[in-house]
Amino acid sequence: MKREKIPAIVVTRLSIYLRSLAILAQHDVEVISSRHLADMCGINPAQIRRDLSYFGEFGVRGVGYYVNELLFEIRKILGLDKQWRLALVGVGNLGLALLKHPEFQNQRYTFVLAFEKDPKKIGTIVEQLTIAPLNAMNRLVKEKQVEIGVITATPEWAQKAADSLVRAGVRGILNFAPLQLKCPGHVFVEDADFTIKSDALCYKLTSLEPG
Amino acid sequence: MKREKIPAIVVTRLSIYLRSLAILAQHDVEVISSRHLADMCGINPAQIRRDLSYFGEFGVRGVGYYVNELLFEIRKILGLDKQWRLALVGVGNLGLALLKHPEFQNQRYTFVLAFEKDPKKIGTIVEQLTIAPLNAMNRLVKEKQVEIGVITATPEWAQKAADSLVRAGVRGILNFAPLQLKCPGHVFVEDADFTIKSDALCYKLTSLEPG
Repeated sequence: MKREKIPAIVVTRLSIYLRSLAILAQHDVEVISSRHLADMCGINPAQIRRDLSYFGEFGVRGVGYYVNELLFEIRKILGLDKQWRLALVGVGNLGLALLKHPEFQNQRYTFVLAFEKDPKKIGTIVEQLTIAPLNAMNRLVKEKQVEIGVITATPEWAQKAADSLVRAGVRGILNFAPLQLKCPGHVFVEDADFTIKSDALCYKLTSLEPG
Repeated sequence: MKREKIPAIVVTRLSIYLRSLAILAQHDVEVISSRHLADMCGINPAQIRRDLSYFGEFGVRGVGYYVNELLFEIRKILGLDKQWRLALVGVGNLGLALLKHPEFQNQRYTFVLAFEKDPKKIGTIVEQLTIAPLNAMNRLVKEKQVEIGVITATPEWAQKAADSLVRAGVRGILNFAPLQLKCPGHVFVEDADFTIKSDALCYKLTSLEPG
């Protein structure tokens, strides 16, 4: 299913709605008022309505949203109604933390491969994965039908890791390394590098009056 | 120093320029052409000029930018010409990875405290920090003059962690927990939760034609 391009910020907010709805579903809440959902998300109710209107009609006037129904629909919109197959590149502390992270051990994401360039780590087993060498990437990524590469390599070899992933046919990269990856146009890259966020925080603390 | 509000995206790009300039400085590059810097950052030269023009005049026509000078200026703009004192809340796998991360062990950031609610972890030492209980937060945060709280707690107690940090006087929070924190207006929160980024990537892979 191919859609019109939706503003990136709308997609971000869908992800925020999804998190709140998932918490509600865990607590067996069946219906939520639009005001309550908005409050949980820190976003106003009109904005939620506008965002959802890109994708169809959701919610019932005077009632609110049916939690499981909206959860199901947003998962479908985001493409999270399937499990994505990930390969980790760089099994340092951050890489290990991601392998063990609940977000990547649920029904939406699963790591099927882990790569390292450090010979001491290659062949060892972490989270039921045998750490593989970089030169096996092309073969293994195809064999395991990896869809997303997660890069936690150091800046020095992150670009090489991205190049190898792309050569092996990966079309999506989640990049934790603090550098701008250069990838061909058919590859989507999302930067998850938190140093950008910590720098932005320091800027605000230094230069802005408290809001 | 208090300035006019600069668009968040400009601040983000300053952080990207900073990363590239730091790599250049490490390699003893003294001058870089505006085109070469733009290429490293994946941003066009005119955009870089426009972004920098918010803060003054940088670069020399026909020459480019003096690496160390621009590095120094951008650090000053972002408030990174000092070392920020951080407290970690939640010493799980991700928290440990952050404590050991090179970005948080440099001249710009230093962890001075780590908190946990798990009694088995309290009192143990990680990266030269003795893990402290939550009920010591108020006293310790003031004593150590913490400026930024880094939350890697689970969603269930992340809000409580934020409330305690704010009560203890912290004005900046870097939040890795997958939920929207509610904080008073004088507190700045930056979300570093990567699940938003992975969801956005899945959306693109599902719904967009390759660019």
